[in-house]
Amino acid sequence: MQRAQLPPPSPSRHLAARGLGLAAAFAVVLPLPAAAAEKKPDATPTTAAVLAATRPGDWRMLDAQDTLYLELPQGRVVIELAPAFAPNHVANIRALAREHYYDDVAIVRAQDNYLVQISDPDAKDEAKRRPVKTAKASLPPEFTTPWNARIAFTALPDRDGYAPEVGFSGGFPAARDRKAGRAWLPNCYGTVGVGRLNAPDSGSGAELYVTIGTPPRQLDRNTTVVGRVVQGMDLLSALPRGSGRMGGYDRPEKRPPVQRIRVAADVPGNERSALEVLRTDTPAFRAWVESQRNRREPFYVAQAGHVDVCNLPLPVRAVQPSP
Amino acid sequence: MQRAQLPPPSPSRHLAARGLGLAAAFAVVLPLPAAAAEKKPDATPTTAAVLAATRPGDWRMLDAQDTLYLELPQGRVVIELAPAFAPNHVANIRALAREHYYDDVAIVRAQDNYLVQISDPDAKDEAKRRPVKTAKASLPPEFTTPWNARIAFTALPDRDGYAPEVGFSGGFPAARDRKAGRAWLPNCYGTVGVGRLNAPDSGSGAELYVTIGTPPRQLDRNTTVVGRVVQGMDLLSALPRGSGRMGGYDRPEKRPPVQRIRVAADVPGNERSALEVLRTDTPAFRAWVESQRNRREPFYVAQAGHVDVCNLPLPVRAVQPSP
Repeated sequence: MQRAQLPPPSPSRHLAARGLGLAAAFAVVLPLPAAAAEKKPDATPTTAAVLAATRPGDWRMLDAQDTLYLELPQGRVVIELAPAFAPNHVANIRALAREHYYDDVAIVRAQDNYLVQISDPDAKDEAKRRPVKTAKASLPPEFTTPWNARIAFTALPDRDGYAPEVGFSGGFPAARDRKAGRAWLPNCYGTVGVGRLNAPDSGSGAELYVTIGTPPRQLDRNTTVVGRVVQGMDLLSALPRGSGRMGGYDRPEKRPPVQRIRVAADVPGNERSALEVLRTDTPAFRAWVESQRNRREPFYVAQAGHVDVCNLPLPVRAVQPSP
Repeated sequence: MQRAQLPPPSPSRHLAARGLGLAAAFAVVLPLPAAAAEKKPDATPTTAAVLAATRPGDWRMLDAQDTLYLELPQGRVVIELAPAFAPNHVANIRALAREHYYDDVAIVRAQDNYLVQISDPDAKDEAKRRPVKTAKASLPPEFTTPWNARIAFTALPDRDGYAPEVGFSGGFPAARDRKAGRAWLPNCYGTVGVGRLNAPDSGSGAELYVTIGTPPRQLDRNTTVVGRVVQGMDLLSALPRGSGRMGGYDRPEKRPPVQRIRVAADVPGNERSALEVLRTDTPAFRAWVESQRNRREPFYVAQAGHVDVCNLPLPVRAVQPSP
């Protein structure tokens, strides 16, 4: 008996977690292409076959102005910002990064199956907490944004329980309610959002959360979502959980340190993470969705005929930086 | 500005993660009950209020024959088995535990946002791998089970994309297709299932997986689900991810060790984890579901009016063991 192994969820998760090039990822997910073809001669392609068939134009480079580097001692977490959905908070987070607000902040909370939270560790201490200088200390919420037809939206064919319609917009899982004229970003795994108190306008981006478990969709339309983790998610999800109230660490010295958060555009070119992500408005992306809705790898005996908007990983690949 | 904090997802996740008593949990989730009452005089109760109103009969002790202790150096993971859905695999796992098959196995794979896998680290080496003695080396799959009206089923009011109907059965998230006459357990966070090769009958329970991210519902009806983690999930979810193929560890010495897996009934009474879980066939449970569908804590400005079957944590509490 060989070791029994479940298949990888998709090449993209593998890629996203480790930033491998495509060649490496394909080796992972093409275990038995011939057998698969025999089994289902009329089948939709596998996830790996869809990726293999993509062309350069199906991918886009991350925009350096819309990319954050969250630097931890153990490595870099790359976050793509979503200015189309939270323009004021994204601008404020850029301002906070540029005034060095996030230098030497910490992970102050890690609650299993929920989220990690990044904050000034002295935020609760009026005497010690760091001042906000050029940025705003609080902002009106951007829980949803007005819907208009200029916002790109590739709808999923499948229904969703939490929103009238879900799909992808500019590379983000997205939801919309055309009747109400609103759109928003759902809380999936790796979603980056703004911490706040009970008052909806008490957030600023000075405190950020990243989700690390079951998509906490109950937060949808209750928090300002500002982005998603594109690479390095495992550096956050594998942090030791806090044993205190709501996942807080019982002793300050247990808080995992954050060295800084920078806008990629402010980082010298040779220090940037050169990443491309699959566009979400192309026929290639629609094929990707279909390959996730009905998995054709030989492991699968039953096809779901469905994919949840939060269960659809977005392919990421490392590229050579331009000289 | 105080530190902005998102609310806990529910007292039960807090409980499940850390095995706190109820009193501690209530302190967590009742931040502003008066304000909440003012805001929504006709509101359904909060999750904390629902739990506070439960009576002893709303809870059940875990059955020691249906409980596994997965012992890691860093602590114990408590798993409840689901013999109603996978009787042959559950019996085989008990046999494997009793013949000490799982003594000194290891976590051989930890793939971010997907699963960890427990296995004989030498399973791939025909000369070194441990023999299966009294248990069976492979079994016919139990991906689904025949549906009959004697199987308890508390249906959720909300639709699901992956199954015609979802709800809870005997304390487990469950799915059923009455037309096809089948029921099964969906893959949520903390689901325990059987690893296998591509052949559906290649699993035995000698290798087990536990899901650690977005519910991988594409595995539903493709794997034999044997149980769920009731306590200690954070010991698995915070493990360092493997950097190799499909989350494998690149060097054997990096594999997190597993000391053993035992059936709770085989453990002396004073060494058992005395845990009660909320029953899923009571009016109290229905109130719990409703409090999750529409969150009434003062943090929330929008209610979902929906809850996903995998986004509904099941309350767990420690009880004093009987003398």
